[in-house]
Amino acid sequence: VKLGKSVVVAMAAVALVASSALAADMSDLRNEALDHFAPLPSTPVFKEGNRPNDAKITLGRMLFFDARLSKSNVFSCNSCHNLGTGGVDNNSFSTGHRWQVGGRNAPTVFNASLHIAQFWDGRAADVEAQAVGPELNPVEMGATEALIMERLASIPAYVKLFSDAFPEQRKPLRYENVGAAIGAFERTLLTPSAFDAYLNGNESALSGKEKKGLAAFMNVGCVNCHNGVAVGGNSYQVFGAVNQPENLADKGRFDVTGKEEDLHVFKVPSLRNIELTYPYFNDGSVWELEKAVKIMGWTQLGEKLSDKQIDEIVAFLGSLTGVAESYDLPTLPPSTAKTPRPDRN
Amino acid sequence: VKLGKSVVVAMAAVALVASSALAADMSDLRNEALDHFAPLPSTPVFKEGNRPNDAKITLGRMLFFDARLSKSNVFSCNSCHNLGTGGVDNNSFSTGHRWQVGGRNAPTVFNASLHIAQFWDGRAADVEAQAVGPELNPVEMGATEALIMERLASIPAYVKLFSDAFPEQRKPLRYENVGAAIGAFERTLLTPSAFDAYLNGNESALSGKEKKGLAAFMNVGCVNCHNGVAVGGNSYQVFGAVNQPENLADKGRFDVTGKEEDLHVFKVPSLRNIELTYPYFNDGSVWELEKAVKIMGWTQLGEKLSDKQIDEIVAFLGSLTGVAESYDLPTLPPSTAKTPRPDRN
Repeated sequence: VKLGKSVVVAMAAVALVASSALAADMSDLRNEALDHFAPLPSTPVFKEGNRPNDAKITLGRMLFFDARLSKSNVFSCNSCHNLGTGGVDNNSFSTGHRWQVGGRNAPTVFNASLHIAQFWDGRAADVEAQAVGPELNPVEMGATEALIMERLASIPAYVKLFSDAFPEQRKPLRYENVGAAIGAFERTLLTPSAFDAYLNGNESALSGKEKKGLAAFMNVGCVNCHNGVAVGGNSYQVFGAVNQPENLADKGRFDVTGKEEDLHVFKVPSLRNIELTYPYFNDGSVWELEKAVKIMGWTQLGEKLSDKQIDEIVAFLGSLTGVAESYDLPTLPPSTAKTPRPDRN
Repeated sequence: VKLGKSVVVAMAAVALVASSALAADMSDLRNEALDHFAPLPSTPVFKEGNRPNDAKITLGRMLFFDARLSKSNVFSCNSCHNLGTGGVDNNSFSTGHRWQVGGRNAPTVFNASLHIAQFWDGRAADVEAQAVGPELNPVEMGATEALIMERLASIPAYVKLFSDAFPEQRKPLRYENVGAAIGAFERTLLTPSAFDAYLNGNESALSGKEKKGLAAFMNVGCVNCHNGVAVGGNSYQVFGAVNQPENLADKGRFDVTGKEEDLHVFKVPSLRNIELTYPYFNDGSVWELEKAVKIMGWTQLGEKLSDKQIDEIVAFLGSLTGVAESYDLPTLPPSTAKTPRPDRN
């Protein structure tokens, strides 16, 4: 094909105009996104009254991985909130003490500190408060405060770490501080992703398809609930706002408040790393992200999303994945003759 | 106290002689030690026919941590051979599928590649052969070859890693290669310790007490079985060679060979990292290292070791601890719609 010079120049001009129009569109998209979302903070946000120090983060990481926080010594926090698999265990319900099974899908610990509250029903105010719960749950780790504290007090390295982590306290070896240390560690578990790079100004951090997905995510209305720094995690909503879901056995936040208006109300999950944190929903009943998006469109928005919309939205959701290639599995201090032994019963 | 000059000179001379005699003693001790032990190799020793490459080690590490190798997706290799706790789970018997329980104490993966064979009864020739066992054991991980291979084949990142790890094979996605990859990874799990530094010529790597313990360890006869590069792991011996132990329920290697002479015969455990790998013996019945040393002295050597001997030997055993401060917990590739789901039953 041969083209005259003037034609080539004209085409180049058209291309330029189109390209700058596209750039304007894209910049508009980013501006619109910035109305709804915020990039992850560049450093962890710690809790007032739970100031971090190296010993506290080290202690929190060790406790997170220490199965001596369970009665049987079989389960650690990481068993169900596995840092190697998006901070979850990829099971519908987690397996606990004596092979018992939980009633809600284990949420991810990654970025959890940015949520308004913890657990599906928001019954814990923050990660520090959440982190003292599962140890004592008979179907999860099956331990008692007394057992855990007797174990920790019997291990010199832990005694020293508690002292170093809470230098302002006269009696640092307290169960509450187990939560404070684990919580402080969990606040470091932030996963900046391509979407953050995009929000921070790198237009090419998202592909064309991901941008279309972002646009659809906002236009369709997903963003009404999944917004903010965690793309969710910052409000409570009723499951089945428009159309009823298949399974409504779980009463959600009603169990916490006893208020009729909280029936089937759940904390909106964060969508960060969502492609890793299957299966989906409070009951872990849906294994494909495409299907989860489709159901959400119908139950929450009354929208029958097209396959193309779903495909693009899922592409966008992929840009929220930001876990590291690996995490530190710390070597734990050994037990001593005084350490209460594991009990599988 | 005032001393004449000649007395001081004479004392200094005596001190010099004593000090060089001590140095000679210590050097003799190290020479004697080198007759029995060898320092860890400075690089892993790989298996002929299972040459390592980066993809293979990466794949092996991922598989080691991947709970999808168990039917329930609850257990990974690391559940019982936890790199954060000396390569064991510090339970007498490990908990497996449906809360069932094993019959022998889980041995450490650290330095296991240096043993003559794997398992307490030596029924697997090497770590590659061992690493395909527990997945299929109904009381451990409860899976089948078909289930595991269907899961791995459904995950593109694994398919690629198997291809890259076994470039010479036409069909790399085979169950045997699960063992080859995990085995190759496990061969990298070497833990050089103060004792290796000592064997390599650093006289001050061991304290005076540790050296006394080393001397006792050799003089008493522990070294008859616990010798070589792994301080054990290189021979089979009968439990109760001189005096009968309390519990002889386990028939040991007899179960493998059917030979009368193998009744209650076990592979001698390696003592590397022994202070971390409690509880002790094939049945994990003894929790204190002091007690284990005492029992061994009596059952294997007919020696009633003194508290001082035991104390020094235990100090020496502490110099065999060489685990790193942390290990890499890899992020695993997510499942797909085709991946067979977990089954707790």
